[in-house]
Amino acid sequence: MRAIVFENFKTFPTLTDVQKPTPGPGEVLLKVAGAGACHSDVAIYDDFEEGAPGAQKPPFVLGHENSGWVEEVGEGVDGFTKGDAYLVYGPIGCQHCRACSRGQDTYCENAATNPYMGVGLGRDGGMAEYVTVPARNLVPLGDADPIDAAPLSDAGLTPYHAIKLALPHLAGGGRFALVIGLGGLGQLGVQILTALTGATVIATDMKEDAMAKAEAAGAITVPGGPDQVARIREITGGKGVDAAFDFVGAAGTVKVAMESMAVKGRCTIVGIAGGSFEWSFFTNPYEATITNTYWGTIEELHEVVDMYRAGQITPEVERFTLDNGLDAYRKLQAGELSARAVVVPHGE
Amino acid sequence: MRAIVFENFKTFPTLTDVQKPTPGPGEVLLKVAGAGACHSDVAIYDDFEEGAPGAQKPPFVLGHENSGWVEEVGEGVDGFTKGDAYLVYGPIGCQHCRACSRGQDTYCENAATNPYMGVGLGRDGGMAEYVTVPARNLVPLGDADPIDAAPLSDAGLTPYHAIKLALPHLAGGGRFALVIGLGGLGQLGVQILTALTGATVIATDMKEDAMAKAEAAGAITVPGGPDQVARIREITGGKGVDAAFDFVGAAGTVKVAMESMAVKGRCTIVGIAGGSFEWSFFTNPYEATITNTYWGTIEELHEVVDMYRAGQITPEVERFTLDNGLDAYRKLQAGELSARAVVVPHGE
Amino acid sequence: MRAIVFENFKTFPTLTDVQKPTPGPGEVLLKVAGAGACHSDVAIYDDFEEGAPGAQKPPFVLGHENSGWVEEVGEGVDGFTKGDAYLVYGPIGCQHCRACSRGQDTYCENAATNPYMGVGLGRDGGMAEYVTVPARNLVPLGDADPIDAAPLSDAGLTPYHAIKLALPHLAGGGRFALVIGLGGLGQLGVQILTALTGATVIATDMKEDAMAKAEAAGAITVPGGPDQVARIREITGGKGVDAAFDFVGAAGTVKVAMESMAVKGRCTIVGIAGGSFEWSFFTNPYEATITNTYWGTIEELHEVVDMYRAGQITPEVERFTLDNGLDAYRKLQAGELSARAVVVPHGE
Amino acid sequence: MRAIVFENFKTFPTLTDVQKPTPGPGEVLLKVAGAGACHSDVAIYDDFEEGAPGAQKPPFVLGHENSGWVEEVGEGVDGFTKGDAYLVYGPIGCQHCRACSRGQDTYCENAATNPYMGVGLGRDGGMAEYVTVPARNLVPLGDADPIDAAPLSDAGLTPYHAIKLALPHLAGGGRFALVIGLGGLGQLGVQILTALTGATVIATDMKEDAMAKAEAAGAITVPGGPDQVARIREITGGKGVDAAFDFVGAAGTVKVAMESMAVKGRCTIVGIAGGSFEWSFFTNPYEATITNTYWGTIEELHEVVDMYRAGQITPEVERFTLDNGLDAYRKLQAGELSARAVVVPHGE
Repeated sequence: MRAIVFENFKTFPTLTDVQKPTPGPGEVLLKVAGAGACHSDVAIYDDFEEGAPGAQKPPFVLGHENSGWVEEVGEGVDGFTKGDAYLVYGPIGCQHCRACSRGQDTYCENAATNPYMGVGLGRDGGMAEYVTVPARNLVPLGDADPIDAAPLSDAGLTPYHAIKLALPHLAGGGRFALVIGLGGLGQLGVQILTALTGATVIATDMKEDAMAKAEAAGAITVPGGPDQVARIREITGGKGVDAAFDFVGAAGTVKVAMESMAVKGRCTIVGIAGGSFEWSFFTNPYEATITNTYWGTIEELHEVVDMYRAGQITPEVERFTLDNGLDAYRKLQAGELSARAVVVPHGE
Repeated sequence: MRAIVFENFKTFPTLTDVQKPTPGPGEVLLKVAGAGACHSDVAIYDDFEEGAPGAQKPPFVLGHENSGWVEEVGEGVDGFTKGDAYLVYGPIGCQHCRACSRGQDTYCENAATNPYMGVGLGRDGGMAEYVTVPARNLVPLGDADPIDAAPLSDAGLTPYHAIKLALPHLAGGGRFALVIGLGGLGQLGVQILTALTGATVIATDMKEDAMAKAEAAGAITVPGGPDQVARIREITGGKGVDAAFDFVGAAGTVKVAMESMAVKGRCTIVGIAGGSFEWSFFTNPYEATITNTYWGTIEELHEVVDMYRAGQITPEVERFTLDNGLDAYRKLQAGELSARAVVVPHGE
Repeated sequence: MRAIVFENFKTFPTLTDVQKPTPGPGEVLLKVAGAGACHSDVAIYDDFEEGAPGAQKPPFVLGHENSGWVEEVGEGVDGFTKGDAYLVYGPIGCQHCRACSRGQDTYCENAATNPYMGVGLGRDGGMAEYVTVPARNLVPLGDADPIDAAPLSDAGLTPYHAIKLALPHLAGGGRFALVIGLGGLGQLGVQILTALTGATVIATDMKEDAMAKAEAAGAITVPGGPDQVARIREITGGKGVDAAFDFVGAAGTVKVAMESMAVKGRCTIVGIAGGSFEWSFFTNPYEATITNTYWGTIEELHEVVDMYRAGQITPEVERFTLDNGLDAYRKLQAGELSARAVVVPHGE
Repeated sequence: MRAIVFENFKTFPTLTDVQKPTPGPGEVLLKVAGAGACHSDVAIYDDFEEGAPGAQKPPFVLGHENSGWVEEVGEGVDGFTKGDAYLVYGPIGCQHCRACSRGQDTYCENAATNPYMGVGLGRDGGMAEYVTVPARNLVPLGDADPIDAAPLSDAGLTPYHAIKLALPHLAGGGRFALVIGLGGLGQLGVQILTALTGATVIATDMKEDAMAKAEAAGAITVPGGPDQVARIREITGGKGVDAAFDFVGAAGTVKVAMESMAVKGRCTIVGIAGGSFEWSFFTNPYEATITNTYWGTIEELHEVVDMYRAGQITPEVERFTLDNGLDAYRKLQAGELSARAVVVPHGE
């Protein structure tokens, strides 16, 4: 079958022929509906050197944001019907530590010794006609469009997880949330916040069209600039925001987030730009916290699908055939995409 | 000044002249903006006998849902400006037990020995030109209409408190809430649920126009009848509701609520019809709970006002002059009101 | 190999020879260290009729409280070393619904169509020389004694789960907990409560020696009788208990628990005697809840093992050889055991 | 009456005669049982300059850790009996914002315009024969020793509040807590943690005798030094601590705390040494948080007293007569105290 393969570190992937996979015990073979192209794919083939921490050893098929139709089940797998559509939870841990037991393979206690991190992350992913995944990693899509759904497995689940942990801070009247960075994850973050909370959602980005989209989804926007924090605080009546979500994570954005916090607020850094922040007792609003999160849990992916099926979240998608799949990565790297690129191997 | 006074047990109140009150130490004198007429007022003058548990000793001015403008402050009171509008938290406990210390006078540990239960509940209330209240019981309304706000102090706070305690059950995608009884509290309950959660809100009542209002506020309605529970479960995909709020509390409604519960759901009985329910291990969905709540806390009333000022909740109100104030009670008893009656002593 | 087999409904099990099992894909073969005999085993072979709800179809090897040493791993299983000791999480659900994804197979959404409920529950259990279990169901015991550990998988996990859900009610100074029924689960419940909370633990049972054991573990005991509830309330200074755990579940014990509750307390019925309770708005202390729980999650079993390894819980055990294993059931039925019976197939 | 008065900035207090106070409306006059001398008193008279943020304007009687017996009640105060012993909640906010309404005057929204911060903090405190306090700030001590209790109002409440907020992180088996800094607050912190949780408590300090005391209270101690973090992690089996409490707050201690954190852990900085910490996405264990807290709430002080009365916490106290009260401050500044200094105006 055709597939987009990461063949060597520091090397652009190739579209090539590989063996169609067979589902092992406990696995399901999916006919791929959609596979999202993610910035972290670019990191995989462009940034990492062999042996670096986090480097995934080539070769393997890319694609960790996947959906598809059941084609075949492996030994010991029950309860699946050929043709039914599923979204794929990408992370795969050891499956027997306490983190994996609660469906949070992202924090697997044995990550250091696992052979791979997940589907499309060291193990063959969804940028192909077919992909195998553990049955446990499948979330049913029902009659919802599986192609648009593909990015939800990462670009939806990641903000959902960050937001879900912060919901106690946003529970009730008079709450304020701040979203920094209005790319794919940030836009879905705004949609999730307006759907799940009564909070006033304040959003900010450098791009005007991204801010316009966030406004259409119910956010109040505040542009960057020297008085950005003052304007955010003004909207909150001075008290600051109860929860901030920074989908960039640069030193500058973390600073804006932390300077906007209310007493008892929660600041979550999701973006991996890696900026640092100088925390101090005397500048931190009492009981405000700062933290980071990474991806999410299987159960949360079920809930993301619930929201998608209820029309509460709508990923913006630009579709590519598998034959044009490498274009998706080229455009992603060139900054020419205004929506999540999804490779659609079998047509729409 | 003119006031509506509860003068004797089992006796309809009278409109009469009483002494204009003076604020004591720690108190504020309000010029009344609005005073809501509540079913529990009827219970006060119609149902209770002298000495019965819960009976409030006459005579006193009725009205425990009050708003007004600051007229004068008592000794030791700071930080109020004449003419500013406030909503009144009605309950008054001992002020020094741990429940009162957290602003939950409703659960005062010394309730049995307190001289009264609150403003308009054993102590003079707001069905008058002026009323005194402890400064601590005042919630600022800013520039929001204080007349429509009056009922929020009970008809808004009571569902808000019940819902806030249940929010952890409704946090996230794919949740379902059930509201039984679509009078004043139930309608506000629907509004609060649709504003603060992403849950699908299912509402039910005997009256079609009440159901139509709930639909306009975003609920799906299910009429009564033999297949009511089956239809509620069907909407939830079989699993049942994650939170139910019964604003009636009759044996029949509690039964519908409990039979509609999901595993881990929370069923809150708010209505005081006093129906009982036979709980059993083998019929209770695992970890589903049943409980009751009563009114709310001062801090929650601040949050109710936040929602009101943000336009998230809109009480339906029918206004009466103080001279026509007894009509409000007559119509309330006769079932002739389709909205909360608010007595407006000083015109609009 | 030798095994204790449930062969027919309404029939005492037999000790017989069966084929030594082979681990399937994703499974591990354990050499059994200990297998606890539980009252629900008696229900399996004595109470149920064919086709009844909850009936597990014979024949199969009994034993759902198991520990053992890794003997062999099936296809696709990594990270286990021969000879290492593990405790077995008994429940086995569909493995791909959201409940199973969080390690709570007890509430599997597909329970109705699963072929069995768990190890020793429709599928061969641990009352044998060897047993196979899914790798995911194994919790490492390190160097702790695996024989005494066996009952923890049910008699430890069940109270632990009930208590863990109630911990928010017991968090802080001045809390009170009530344990009703001081058999195996109740005694471990007392140990868990005294270890994990600062609450005053009040315990009650019909048997004096059971109460003496609970006292030794740090509880205050209150005997049954007409003034039982009054004495419980007196210990709490009148307010009632913040959490009650009823390990009996008869109408009388549920009533004692509910009449002892404080405002905002949580009453958990764990015992399956099936008594009912007439719930009423006017007798329920405000915001007190009643609920039921069933067994626990994989992650919680890890935490139970943490407590066992730290010496915080000590199951009381009476050991039987496999040859004498049927005696364990005979004594259990006759009420002749004062500790949990554990069958030890391979000696100590 | 005799009193210890802060008379001028940058000036050691004086023991002098002042007018015996009279309780205003809503206040209670206490005959002082004990008044604790706190490091922040030293800051008040030694560190602050006039007009600096946080400076409390002299003159006033020092002492914000107070207990006493009811002597007289002001207008409008009910429910107190002369001679009954109470502990005093020190902070006094505006009494009508939402923070004050929940008994958390420490986070009063109107702090900037309040005339003082609390009893002994801008308003006359307890280093005198008598002191007046708002009735709402009193917590009953029953028959417990009021003299030893005095420091609990700050040195007990401050760690209690920090720990209570972290209890969800310590709920269950297998948890680890870290206490840095074993002065008065840290020692009580160790006692509170061992009483309220099942966590392994790791404690560290520069002084051996302080560590010995912590060990006596149930902690495992780890001395400072280059391998301190490694030893802490080793005790936790590598995963790190679920909650850390830093009662120093210097750059070095915050660093030790943060480097010892587990995934999802909570690091609370209580000490005000003001050290900063460079937070970074890539070094922060996922979902670990860092925060600061300040003092506590009235309701929590009730719970601290519950623990004290139950014998779960025992403040170490060195008593001084009022005549020798200035010695308490001299010794405090000289580092010559090994326990909390409590001034006892009326003998023991």
